[in-house]
Amino acid sequence: MLPDRAFFDRLADAASAETLPRFRAGIDVVNKQAGGFDPVTEGDRAAETAIRAVIAEAYPDHGILGEEHDNVGLDRDNVWVIDPIDGTRAFISGLPTWGTLIGFYQKGRATCGLIDQPFTGERYLADGERTLYRGPGGERTLRVRDCGDLADATLFTTSPHLFRGTEAERYREVESRVRLFRYGVDCYAYALLAAGHIDLVIENGLKPYDVGGVIPVVEQAGGIMTSWDGGRPEMGGSIIAAGSRAVHEQAMRLLNP
Amino acid sequence: MLPDRAFFDRLADAASAETLPRFRAGIDVVNKQAGGFDPVTEGDRAAETAIRAVIAEAYPDHGILGEEHDNVGLDRDNVWVIDPIDGTRAFISGLPTWGTLIGFYQKGRATCGLIDQPFTGERYLADGERTLYRGPGGERTLRVRDCGDLADATLFTTSPHLFRGTEAERYREVESRVRLFRYGVDCYAYALLAAGHIDLVIENGLKPYDVGGVIPVVEQAGGIMTSWDGGRPEMGGSIIAAGSRAVHEQAMRLLNP
Repeated sequence: MLPDRAFFDRLADAASAETLPRFRAGIDVVNKQAGGFDPVTEGDRAAETAIRAVIAEAYPDHGILGEEHDNVGLDRDNVWVIDPIDGTRAFISGLPTWGTLIGFYQKGRATCGLIDQPFTGERYLADGERTLYRGPGGERTLRVRDCGDLADATLFTTSPHLFRGTEAERYREVESRVRLFRYGVDCYAYALLAAGHIDLVIENGLKPYDVGGVIPVVEQAGGIMTSWDGGRPEMGGSIIAAGSRAVHEQAMRLLNP
Repeated sequence: MLPDRAFFDRLADAASAETLPRFRAGIDVVNKQAGGFDPVTEGDRAAETAIRAVIAEAYPDHGILGEEHDNVGLDRDNVWVIDPIDGTRAFISGLPTWGTLIGFYQKGRATCGLIDQPFTGERYLADGERTLYRGPGGERTLRVRDCGDLADATLFTTSPHLFRGTEAERYREVESRVRLFRYGVDCYAYALLAAGHIDLVIENGLKPYDVGGVIPVVEQAGGIMTSWDGGRPEMGGSIIAAGSRAVHEQAMRLLNP
């Protein structure tokens, strides 16, 4: 049996109790990697601890893969995949486009997922069948949109500077064909895609915890999410998500010429 | 006497009654410029009409400069400067980083200003003395922060592709020196600067209505906002805003080598 909506709400509430009070509160930022700028906040660590505690109590035999703490039982049938604050750069800049991502994998396949943005009060939950939205405008079931053609698509990526070499060339080829492209919103872009506001997200260098909570939200809203070579996206890497098969195929031809 | 907070609230409420119901509602987008992608929505036009009606009733002798409709009495002592939806690309992408901008100019100088984001429920108002914030976390008076040095600054710009030629080179020079840079949030970046979350915003090609509501929000929170050549920013153009004089000066030396 899959974890139900009430359980995901408990997880999201436990996380936001740690993240929200620290958002825009002048928190200390620790440099995780010497040399690079990979900020991780107290909130990030505390939120993951809180999420893990709720999971461990309810499902002590499940595995857990998280960004901030050691992994547990990744070879088990049921594994939780957690990014307590996806978009830490947005978080430390005061921009409410970060999110708490929680995915539930069964035998390696993402079957339920959550994207939660507590400042705007938006919760995107894929419960195994549908993607449900709760936010300032009320509740609804989400569906992607089909813009029909790549030339009419709105494309998001976190930053064009993250692509290197051949990947950069191929990404730019897609970017040059779309109607509108925008940078900089991390997981929030996948939420916008699931909700039918945009058409395409292309990224690279993603970790499993960057995609675990996102995949079901996109897929159960009718979207397509794969690696650039067309495989399953659960392990992250170079990822493409689209609102329609036609646009996915057009973009894939440019990414794999 | 300056218009008071209650009056700005009336203006913002009149605007949001037109914008918010159309946000994420699958509105029709009209291309304003053939060839380019300069979307303007029904909401944009309706919101400006609503704002103008409130102003015209209370202050029939004031001038009005707006993005969407004809200008009125720009040679008058008191002029309102309106951008009903700054960040139309964000708006049509479902991203809540657009804002309603309303500035009040006296003899060409921006003395009061408003940045309103109705989806997140955030209102940034400079009332002539202070910048006041109202949002999900409550109310407070805003102050910029002083990060001390350009090397520690967080920089925002709408898109690096908007700079051309020499301006692009000089912008990139600044970008290469900061700790963190991000793209894509239009007026919301100035709100984050006024609130002390980020340190620097650099843009070009701005119209008066892009800056009119923003300048007092930045200045009355203690920030500095000028053109790239150090002049007053009221007419738009190439603009820099900073949280401290030291960071403004460091960036200005790179923009004007």
